[in-house]
Amino acid sequence: MIYLDNAATTKMSTSAIEAMIPYMEQTYGNPSSLHRIGQEANEALTNARERIARLLGCEAREITFTSGGSEADNQAIVSAAYLGTKKGKKHIISTAFEHHAVLHTLNKLEKEGFEITLLDVHENGLILPEQVADAIREDTALVTIMYANNEIGTIQPIAEIGQICHEKGVLFHTDAVQAAGHIEIDVKEQNIDMLSLSAHKFHGPKGVGVLYAKKGILLTNLIEGGAQERGKRAGTENIPAIMSMADALEEACAQIPAHTKKLTALRDKLIDGLLKIPHAVLNGDATHRLPNNVNLCFEGIEGESLLLLLDHKGICASSGSACTSGSLDPSHVLLAIGRPHEIAHGSLRLSLSAYNTEEEIDKAIAAVTEVVAYLRSISPVWRDLENGKLEHVI
Amino acid sequence: MIYLDNAATTKMSTSAIEAMIPYMEQTYGNPSSLHRIGQEANEALTNARERIARLLGCEAREITFTSGGSEADNQAIVSAAYLGTKKGKKHIISTAFEHHAVLHTLNKLEKEGFEITLLDVHENGLILPEQVADAIREDTALVTIMYANNEIGTIQPIAEIGQICHEKGVLFHTDAVQAAGHIEIDVKEQNIDMLSLSAHKFHGPKGVGVLYAKKGILLTNLIEGGAQERGKRAGTENIPAIMSMADALEEACAQIPAHTKKLTALRDKLIDGLLKIPHAVLNGDATHRLPNNVNLCFEGIEGESLLLLLDHKGICASSGSACTSGSLDPSHVLLAIGRPHEIAHGSLRLSLSAYNTEEEIDKAIAAVTEVVAYLRSISPVWRDLENGKLEHVI
Repeated sequence: MIYLDNAATTKMSTSAIEAMIPYMEQTYGNPSSLHRIGQEANEALTNARERIARLLGCEAREITFTSGGSEADNQAIVSAAYLGTKKGKKHIISTAFEHHAVLHTLNKLEKEGFEITLLDVHENGLILPEQVADAIREDTALVTIMYANNEIGTIQPIAEIGQICHEKGVLFHTDAVQAAGHIEIDVKEQNIDMLSLSAHKFHGPKGVGVLYAKKGILLTNLIEGGAQERGKRAGTENIPAIMSMADALEEACAQIPAHTKKLTALRDKLIDGLLKIPHAVLNGDATHRLPNNVNLCFEGIEGESLLLLLDHKGICASSGSACTSGSLDPSHVLLAIGRPHEIAHGSLRLSLSAYNTEEEIDKAIAAVTEVVAYLRSISPVWRDLENGKLEHVI
Repeated sequence: MIYLDNAATTKMSTSAIEAMIPYMEQTYGNPSSLHRIGQEANEALTNARERIARLLGCEAREITFTSGGSEADNQAIVSAAYLGTKKGKKHIISTAFEHHAVLHTLNKLEKEGFEITLLDVHENGLILPEQVADAIREDTALVTIMYANNEIGTIQPIAEIGQICHEKGVLFHTDAVQAAGHIEIDVKEQNIDMLSLSAHKFHGPKGVGVLYAKKGILLTNLIEGGAQERGKRAGTENIPAIMSMADALEEACAQIPAHTKKLTALRDKLIDGLLKIPHAVLNGDATHRLPNNVNLCFEGIEGESLLLLLDHKGICASSGSACTSGSLDPSHVLLAIGRPHEIAHGSLRLSLSAYNTEEEIDKAIAAVTEVVAYLRSISPVWRDLENGKLEHVI
């Protein structure tokens, strides 16, 4: 199988797996226990927290370990909302193409009386800092804008947006689940107050993530109980996964320059190859884009059929977010960048990792080209497009 | 090291570790992805859900995977509270010696206008079903009582309590984090509507747990986002940990008869040996007790010093709950069963697993006896007790 669904999840690296094992076999203690096996686990926790803080450019005490990116997003937004409420601020700014972990949390807050402004996304998948500046009000409690989009890979001008937020005294959170380990992050330099990441997106384990929150930001608990994580996230710490995440993030960050070069070349080769297919269009900006993300729409194609036939040809792909792949609705991300419904249904996301080879990219181009041609050959819609009864949109 | 802190966390079994590896190395897909690697992960998820449901005596669709016991406790209670609110029921019954994941969630609800009744615990660590019957009111939304206490190991009459709740039409949740894998659970036979468990308490992985909720009980999300877990718990499913948990729970449940026999013998040998120490008392009932739990108070002893010296002698022990071991307050569980402050400070919990041997138990008895004698020999309080200036309480 050629795995091109790394935005959904990644294969764990060998060293990330190896980093877990000693904490399952020997140092399995509860970090809250006073005895040696517990204290060794506690030292590991401190060690992982310091290493991850260093990679993000923050202090260890600003790191809270969570069960993943969704939990971190939820906790960041709920915390900022609660802090806002105490100051009479009940307005939140976000964008229409955030991950559902953000959008659904905002929906919940809207029902609780918050006013949510979702910024329009430009056709190229970008938000302009001026949009944020224009939307901020006296009662704005939070701006939450994702670092890189999970479907179309566009990278936002995070440092500029953060600077605007800071000038106006508004908290700034970014969902960096797709960005962490893939592009350079420095929360201080980039003016980020809160940031979420998830280990399984950079060859680390599933079930673990990080919420960075600048010191002074009091978090609201999603999970009440023991005094773990400075009392802000109850539950016995998952030391094997946390140690593995630290290892995976170090490995990923160390290789960003090399991987960016390799993946950008593979990505652009893949995009160029697929754009040779007639009536295909790239979704998202060609350059302000994750080095591993390819996303196109093909006219006259139904995304699910495309995926199933690609799977038969040994290619693991996605139509967009894995989290909603069971849904028949078109991607909210593609609608947000203005793709019409009938086009948004024919989307294909191919997300690469450094494990992919040029040969795999060649095979993927050939397979997609073949499958698109086949699906069009049996499509009544495509016949109508070709004989002029319907008009081509792209 | 002799590890006698299995109530805090356990060493993973070899087979539970082995059960994770294939889902980290090969079947690492996102279960929401339509391609083969994703669908194989999805089949694993279904398989684990069915196996765990069988072990608990429920249906697969009644199982929600969480990041652990604390999250499951929080979600169960918040869900029942929300359902209660919709019917104008804002009263919840629990006990004074629940885990903090329960008590702190109840504190939060109290601030939101719920009335909480915490039942008194008898000196032997038991709750009587009649107490529950007497406390239930017209506006009671939930009874939540732990299956087995995490500090003193007492096992509650869960089936009887559940029956009373059902007769009165009140939802019944039990925190079975210490019970699951150690004693037989059948949620239907035992009249349980909701139940929480955590894999790392029965030689499974950390960072994963189960919330069982009887069909028809609509859960409230703690974590919003993707449509995982029937839309009730967002976040990419942690398949390696879930598969490992299923394995560990099967292994543990299959061995309950054999382990109960072995551990009860070791436990009682340990209790008998330690009660030979003067002015020592067993906490919790001697028979309605987890087969692996030993908990005593020693007069004139400070628990932390006891633990540190035992650690030097190679014995991993605890004074009570690991989750609050950093705290200087005496255990809320020991206060709930009526131990005075000065005695509650001198507690020792030794929690066994099937990996322990009779030889280790002999060594533990000798070590505790020696350390208690030493600590008393240097204690001014003990001198006053012995020369009659203070009166012995036990």
